[in-house]
Amino acid sequence: MERVLNFAAGPATMPIEVLSNIQKNLCNYNEEGLSVMEMSHRSKTYDRIINDTKNSLKAILNLDDNFEILFLQGGASTQFAMIPLNLADENDLTYYAVTGNFASKAFEEAKKWTNAVDITNSKSDKYKYIPEINNSKIDKKARYLHITANNTIFGTMYDKLPEVDVPLVADVSSNVLGKDYDYTKFALAYAGAQKNLGPAGLTVVIINKKFIREDLSNKVPTMLRYDIHAKNNSMYNTPPTFAIYVAGEMFKWVMKEGGVKALEERNIKKARLLYDILDNSTFYIPFADKKSRSIMNVTFNLPTEELEAKFVEEARNEGMINLKGHRVLGGIRASIYNAMTFDGVKKLAEFMQTFEKNNR
Amino acid sequence: MERVLNFAAGPATMPIEVLSNIQKNLCNYNEEGLSVMEMSHRSKTYDRIINDTKNSLKAILNLDDNFEILFLQGGASTQFAMIPLNLADENDLTYYAVTGNFASKAFEEAKKWTNAVDITNSKSDKYKYIPEINNSKIDKKARYLHITANNTIFGTMYDKLPEVDVPLVADVSSNVLGKDYDYTKFALAYAGAQKNLGPAGLTVVIINKKFIREDLSNKVPTMLRYDIHAKNNSMYNTPPTFAIYVAGEMFKWVMKEGGVKALEERNIKKARLLYDILDNSTFYIPFADKKSRSIMNVTFNLPTEELEAKFVEEARNEGMINLKGHRVLGGIRASIYNAMTFDGVKKLAEFMQTFEKNNR
Repeated sequence: MERVLNFAAGPATMPIEVLSNIQKNLCNYNEEGLSVMEMSHRSKTYDRIINDTKNSLKAILNLDDNFEILFLQGGASTQFAMIPLNLADENDLTYYAVTGNFASKAFEEAKKWTNAVDITNSKSDKYKYIPEINNSKIDKKARYLHITANNTIFGTMYDKLPEVDVPLVADVSSNVLGKDYDYTKFALAYAGAQKNLGPAGLTVVIINKKFIREDLSNKVPTMLRYDIHAKNNSMYNTPPTFAIYVAGEMFKWVMKEGGVKALEERNIKKARLLYDILDNSTFYIPFADKKSRSIMNVTFNLPTEELEAKFVEEARNEGMINLKGHRVLGGIRASIYNAMTFDGVKKLAEFMQTFEKNNR
Repeated sequence: MERVLNFAAGPATMPIEVLSNIQKNLCNYNEEGLSVMEMSHRSKTYDRIINDTKNSLKAILNLDDNFEILFLQGGASTQFAMIPLNLADENDLTYYAVTGNFASKAFEEAKKWTNAVDITNSKSDKYKYIPEINNSKIDKKARYLHITANNTIFGTMYDKLPEVDVPLVADVSSNVLGKDYDYTKFALAYAGAQKNLGPAGLTVVIINKKFIREDLSNKVPTMLRYDIHAKNNSMYNTPPTFAIYVAGEMFKWVMKEGGVKALEERNIKKARLLYDILDNSTFYIPFADKKSRSIMNVTFNLPTEELEAKFVEEARNEGMINLKGHRVLGGIRASIYNAMTFDGVKKLAEFMQTFEKNNR
């Protein structure tokens, strides 16, 4: 089959030129006689790969040496535990903005260790929007406020970061490098790689060094300590070497495309193609409130579940896959991360218009 | 450069036919129009990949449905924490056979949660051998005995598993599928993939289902619970999808080569090529005691550090890389996992003989 248009929420589509380059080098990286997969993480070549990858990301995000980049494993779900364990002491106050499924999971995990409070919670409104955070309600003794920058399942996103008087921690899994935030505003930001950064199995943590603590409870497992990973340049144990290499190739592509600002502009244009159809239709029903719309995941419903199934099926027949919404929400979801081209989204938009015409 | 002979301890050499097949499918898996890296872990194709991979390993190790296979992240180092957290309650007695660097790390981590006792410890003898474990000294109230089946740094290995009256837990990172143990004897065995199973970033846990507990302390992070991963078929969160796929390709290769018994026989022959030289030389000094020798990592010294550096350098010039011993031990280490061919080891053996002749 020729290349599909993959609208999956993650693992997600990657630029074909990045994949082709990885393919070319797969058995014999840079003519060195072995695959990156086979390289000792202590070798000179691999040392260059991991440091180049780290430095590329710092350059892309305009981070100076006050910030550390960590390449970890275990996904955002492991960060849900590491953040309270490292940034708070037992029973400390922590705040969570509960704006979706993963935000809720992060909140529940934090309760195991801290006095976690949901400063906002849009569950009763089906997570249709991102509630404002009222800084005057924030107790400055709290160790941090945790937000989920983009809610993959519901298709909502912080357009602007909240301004609060406590350290800001963000799950940026689904809009890192796709939405242009000022990363120096974060005490810590983290992302599972499988949306905008590369393959599943790598978690990137961006941490302001002053939040790396050594005086942790002895109960915290060694592998869940940021200080241990930072001290060892993410090589306390064998890191996910190949996934880091792929992320590095993705970062080169991001730079070639003009950086995050240029990608954000393209993502806004891509998203607008779809939202314009939703807004000018009596057939499609957009899910997220206008002011909270994501530029990465566009969620909507059709008049009936039968039509939604037909939509997914007919799109698949035209080479557009993974448009079915997450099982928690149902409906349709088009994930249009950095690697999804404008032309790909245009093809989906045209399909949507034809489908509406034929099924109205 | 043509393909090197890679004697790295891990990440380690892989069969070129496995790499070539991964390369062929990298951009377009089985003509489905996308890379495995881009596949939703919830897709039908990926579901088949992960289940085939799991079932292949169960077949290779002759495991029935009393055993569960988990595909996790975080390496053996994360297992050092998960094992005590899941198999013991706070302050329970646990035993550790401390036979090397990683065994010692596992022991130290277990002390954070349990009353961990080193039932044997060969540190004062520089971990040159695997001490016998005296079952009569074992308190049956202990939750488990943890062993390190193969000590990668020191080149020692359990030829036979200890027979004890408590559940046996083993780090099999560096000899899984290379040494033919009866895996039904383990309550739990775990391995970082980057030696015999595939790429770094995947940890395989083989667990007897009766040791999967749900009544754990609320303090245990969700991602460190075996019951959560088992209930979700290793998909509680996004698993390291590409690494699991590569492991599956490795398992197909293991079956094609005749299974673990056949690979063990080949590994014994490969190891003998090197040990015979060490035993018949007054130049090379084998490190490990004869009765504890590993068939995966062969460790030895030369008369001087200068000669060791020269050995590593000249071998590299002949296309044999990563022969330098681990920084903890120094000297020379040749890691000869499943994917290192007999001919590759023979070339090293011949080099060793020539080097001895020229430098004696």
